[in-house]
Amino acid sequence: MEERFMMQKQAYSIGIVGATGLVGQALRKLLRERSFPIKKLKLFASKRSAGQTLNGVLVERVKPHSFAELDGVFFCAGSEVSRELAPQALAQGCWVIDNSSAFRMNPDVPLVVPEVNPEALEGGARLIANPNCSTIIALMALAPLHKVFRLRECVASTYQAVSGSGVAATEALARELGAIAMGEETGALHYRHPIAMNVIPEVDAFLEDGSTREEEKMTEESRKILNLPELRVATTCVRVPVARAHSIAITAGFERPVSREIAEAILEAAQGLVFCKEPEGYPTPLDASLKEDCYVGRLRKTDVFEHGLALWVVGDQIWKGAALNAIQIAELMVGYKKRDA
Amino acid sequence: MEERFMMQKQAYSIGIVGATGLVGQALRKLLRERSFPIKKLKLFASKRSAGQTLNGVLVERVKPHSFAELDGVFFCAGSEVSRELAPQALAQGCWVIDNSSAFRMNPDVPLVVPEVNPEALEGGARLIANPNCSTIIALMALAPLHKVFRLRECVASTYQAVSGSGVAATEALARELGAIAMGEETGALHYRHPIAMNVIPEVDAFLEDGSTREEEKMTEESRKILNLPELRVATTCVRVPVARAHSIAITAGFERPVSREIAEAILEAAQGLVFCKEPEGYPTPLDASLKEDCYVGRLRKTDVFEHGLALWVVGDQIWKGAALNAIQIAELMVGYKKRDA
Repeated sequence: MEERFMMQKQAYSIGIVGATGLVGQALRKLLRERSFPIKKLKLFASKRSAGQTLNGVLVERVKPHSFAELDGVFFCAGSEVSRELAPQALAQGCWVIDNSSAFRMNPDVPLVVPEVNPEALEGGARLIANPNCSTIIALMALAPLHKVFRLRECVASTYQAVSGSGVAATEALARELGAIAMGEETGALHYRHPIAMNVIPEVDAFLEDGSTREEEKMTEESRKILNLPELRVATTCVRVPVARAHSIAITAGFERPVSREIAEAILEAAQGLVFCKEPEGYPTPLDASLKEDCYVGRLRKTDVFEHGLALWVVGDQIWKGAALNAIQIAELMVGYKKRDA
Repeated sequence: MEERFMMQKQAYSIGIVGATGLVGQALRKLLRERSFPIKKLKLFASKRSAGQTLNGVLVERVKPHSFAELDGVFFCAGSEVSRELAPQALAQGCWVIDNSSAFRMNPDVPLVVPEVNPEALEGGARLIANPNCSTIIALMALAPLHKVFRLRECVASTYQAVSGSGVAATEALARELGAIAMGEETGALHYRHPIAMNVIPEVDAFLEDGSTREEEKMTEESRKILNLPELRVATTCVRVPVARAHSIAITAGFERPVSREIAEAILEAAQGLVFCKEPEGYPTPLDASLKEDCYVGRLRKTDVFEHGLALWVVGDQIWKGAALNAIQIAELMVGYKKRDA
């Protein structure tokens, strides 16, 4: 397929740092599908991946003045690269949307889910952080409920797809499963344990208090995005042998009395969210893969919190959990509205 | 292997109804391994499975006086069979340990996890119910903490293996995965959705309030076993593409102040439980398969409840979650103590 973009009255020169990774690939695909107004596209990658041509665009290494001719840059090559190169892109006049965790908790950097806190962009910041994938997916369901009922506390258990760990993890799952199908055994090819026919309660590094960085991210980023510094959150993040799309079982307590009927109406009306009303109509990761919307079902009242609700939310962590959310931030920043297909 | 049992001073004539299912098979294996004092073993199954010989024992259909010559009968053929035949076994003078949900919530029937509430057997009841598998595994970790800190509320999300749905589900997962490895697609062979490379938040039938019967069982049975009728529980039960062993992410609140150090000491001392102290030493279902003990790790403090702890518990749901627990109940009833190997 050719890399073609709508020429519009106003169009932008865009760079992608980390263009060959899973999020970089999704960024290119979704920028095209959403007809984001691009004048020129520059793709950057590491030494290992540079030199190839992707849909007619050469993948380059970043050079000292690579960003000077661009309007905006998406970073999706990890925290270290963002810490090193995002300041250069800003200094060369670009806006930056960073998919890494490098700047997320910096108080001067807006951390944005466009359906949840678009107002965070109003200060005119040029560096915007894209939240953690599980955080985005959880908040797509929690934030609309919070607006009405006021969120007070939340327990979340995740069922996270291996593609969240990158291409290598996805290939490792396929190879581990392939071996099992052949009656063989590979042992663990990517994680600490085999992921084929197993689940692993470890996502990202362990911290002093026994939680993982992923669990900490969900807590801290939710507090920042919802502007609820006192929000109490307990998460357990678990890798499951699913290729794509994260699922999250959420149990939340609110300040105000809740009813299932009103919660249903809120979730049905929420942007970017598909509410599955029938109990047996719940979403699974296979349903939510390669979808822009997040899906929520299994809505129940619970008395474990004073005003409690339980729900099950699923979203494509590479799309809404990363690339799509980043593009939606860019669309807000340049004032571009995607036309309905 | 031959079906041989230790002849002891006192030995018992035992029946297994549902002898050819996964739990029935595990019962036979574990009775043998634990040298349960058996004089005579009778195996019963449905019309479909009767007639075969298992390790030298003929599998029969139940006849009007089948139970008359027995001392005790294990039922693991589903609620309907238990409702029909358990009263006959009792009337013919047997004690009955029922693995189905038929009698669990009957106030006259003890619901027992031997490590948790052995005192429930003291009334001399002849019909004992074996709890739901997820309930047993969750309580193996929660009950010792409850004894010290007093459990007040609990949120649990399960990661349940397909063998919990029986042999057919296990074969369906293998066939779905095999097809994927061959680049083919089978669709859903057992559940409402494919389970290969997917997770399904539906275990057992849906109820009026949007929860499932499995979720209701975990709540009601925990209340009964712990003798905490007011216990607040919120569960989300999810099937994952794992062959064997259920995992449960638990977040619990207690009446008394908790500390990680004391919680660690309690879990280390608990019977039938292996505590994995190092954060990265957490258990996975592959580790816990075909093990008598349950495994607990990922212990953390949390402020989502006033005195809160989070943990991750894994156990073989066919062994401790069903067959082993039933045998341990029988051992208590006949006063038999397994000798250390």
